[in-house]
Amino acid sequence: MPLSEFDLIKTFFSNSSGARDDVILGVGDDCALLQPPAGMELAITTDTLVEGIHFGTDADPEALGHKSLAVNLSDLAAMGAEPAWVTLALTLPKSDADWLKTFSCGFLSLAQQHQVALIGGDTTRGPLTISVTAHGFVTPGAAIRRSGANVGDLVYVTGTLGDAALALLSRQGKYSVVTGLAELERRLDRPQPRLLAGRSLVGIASSAIDISDGLVSDLGHICEKSSVGARVFLEQIPVSSQIKTYLQQGGDWATVLAAGDDYELCITIPPQQRSLLEDIKAGLDCDLVQVGEIVAGSGVTCVQADGTAVTDPSSGYEHFSRG
Amino acid sequence: MPLSEFDLIKTFFSNSSGARDDVILGVGDDCALLQPPAGMELAITTDTLVEGIHFGTDADPEALGHKSLAVNLSDLAAMGAEPAWVTLALTLPKSDADWLKTFSCGFLSLAQQHQVALIGGDTTRGPLTISVTAHGFVTPGAAIRRSGANVGDLVYVTGTLGDAALALLSRQGKYSVVTGLAELERRLDRPQPRLLAGRSLVGIASSAIDISDGLVSDLGHICEKSSVGARVFLEQIPVSSQIKTYLQQGGDWATVLAAGDDYELCITIPPQQRSLLEDIKAGLDCDLVQVGEIVAGSGVTCVQADGTAVTDPSSGYEHFSRG
Repeated sequence: MPLSEFDLIKTFFSNSSGARDDVILGVGDDCALLQPPAGMELAITTDTLVEGIHFGTDADPEALGHKSLAVNLSDLAAMGAEPAWVTLALTLPKSDADWLKTFSCGFLSLAQQHQVALIGGDTTRGPLTISVTAHGFVTPGAAIRRSGANVGDLVYVTGTLGDAALALLSRQGKYSVVTGLAELERRLDRPQPRLLAGRSLVGIASSAIDISDGLVSDLGHICEKSSVGARVFLEQIPVSSQIKTYLQQGGDWATVLAAGDDYELCITIPPQQRSLLEDIKAGLDCDLVQVGEIVAGSGVTCVQADGTAVTDPSSGYEHFSRG
Repeated sequence: MPLSEFDLIKTFFSNSSGARDDVILGVGDDCALLQPPAGMELAITTDTLVEGIHFGTDADPEALGHKSLAVNLSDLAAMGAEPAWVTLALTLPKSDADWLKTFSCGFLSLAQQHQVALIGGDTTRGPLTISVTAHGFVTPGAAIRRSGANVGDLVYVTGTLGDAALALLSRQGKYSVVTGLAELERRLDRPQPRLLAGRSLVGIASSAIDISDGLVSDLGHICEKSSVGARVFLEQIPVSSQIKTYLQQGGDWATVLAAGDDYELCITIPPQQRSLLEDIKAGLDCDLVQVGEIVAGSGVTCVQADGTAVTDPSSGYEHFSRG
């Protein structure tokens, strides 16, 4: 038997779809009714967060609300899509009004920030599981796919990598962050989907993916789909001062390259687009830095400062001191 | 950390989107890309099944695959929408290829039957939870909402009610079905979404809902949204021979009216549409029977054969013998 689905959804999630005039009917009927914009393609993605797997039992519900939406908007960003509507399937151990209120604050605050309407949902009793399906628009043929990278393309990433993973190490008691822990935790708990960057890269990027499992793994998906290889230069990878300190203290590069939860974008651009890319950088809300190149072959090779190459991040990297 | 999402989805759910030419890009990128039909509205719904709540630990995975899609298509049916695309968020305790193969058979078989494409998914590790988001099309303004019922409208239901609930009683050892158990179990495990009926009723029905929580509860939602009341005549409710036997043996009418899992449609039609309704009945794949009427006031009143009325199904009904 469902919880009092109607009451829960009504209380915390109604009036959340009024912000968009393409929502004909929001939460409260058998289906939501939407009017997609004429001639546009729809981009649709779904991602789930599970207690004990993606977050701990003591997770802040507001952060969970934010993150469960953010990871889906990150997928829209990677295609260059403009976000529009989301549905929320929430499985909860018990009906907890305080928890739901805080969760919905985090969820709806991020939704509002990006003009996203929550159009429907289902609330069921069970182990805490949050499943979101997000919908966005993209000009026909313009979506940035994983499959478009070509040999000679340049590999870029947004933001900095490894911060969320370092926050998790700290939370697990495996590493002690002396300064700047709050900022790292914000990266772990409240990732900012790179929607502006994604949309700005339409027509410039040849391929894109969002980095959820770590750069090596996700760039590896671009390589696989595009039938190419990639070289990543470790010293070019943008990292925070906290990560610099961690690496100087002998920390593992796998934290930066293979631990995941970055929710940055990894993109490739043809070299002739570089000047166009430089032009748009100033208008972005995040950095965009070249970290490598697409080469013939397959798989991702990481090149260390001394020129030695590592192909398997799980095999570890030599400790590498950064200034 | 997710299971090997890519491998799982690839193995069992690829090639499932090839059936529709409005699927520009299916499973395997950050998002799916779809081309909605020009000028149509989108109907979107999401429903979740959780182990231990909606099904037992020994549930047949093929039936689960069927049912997790069917309950969502049932919501599209209730709006009169034509189904098109679905996403699947699957949380699994372990990577079990046999389970997944059987589950996907049940899911994709029903999808194929209704020309539905699976366009994306997410597989995570955790307690067994199946969340589906379904998308369909409807002519602008034509969707059948819960809010359109008017005083004087006639209340109809498709199929028969109570069969799934009786199968569950049998499975729980609370009632012994002498003949026809397999048919009842089919109703519980493999409900048939009333998509043809729903689409055929566009322009005829004034309101509709799918019966997932029992007729009294779901017709109650129509009443609430339409600011009306309803009277349901118990002797007019279509029931199977198994339910007739159950009631003759003193079974509780709540099994028919309030136990749920019917996945039939409850609709209202203006009286002047009755002849039009009779015309379309022959073309349907299920019965469509009048069970009541919309009246002024609020809430659902059930009228027994002797003329006495009951408003709260949980208070029970007098045992009522059917011929």
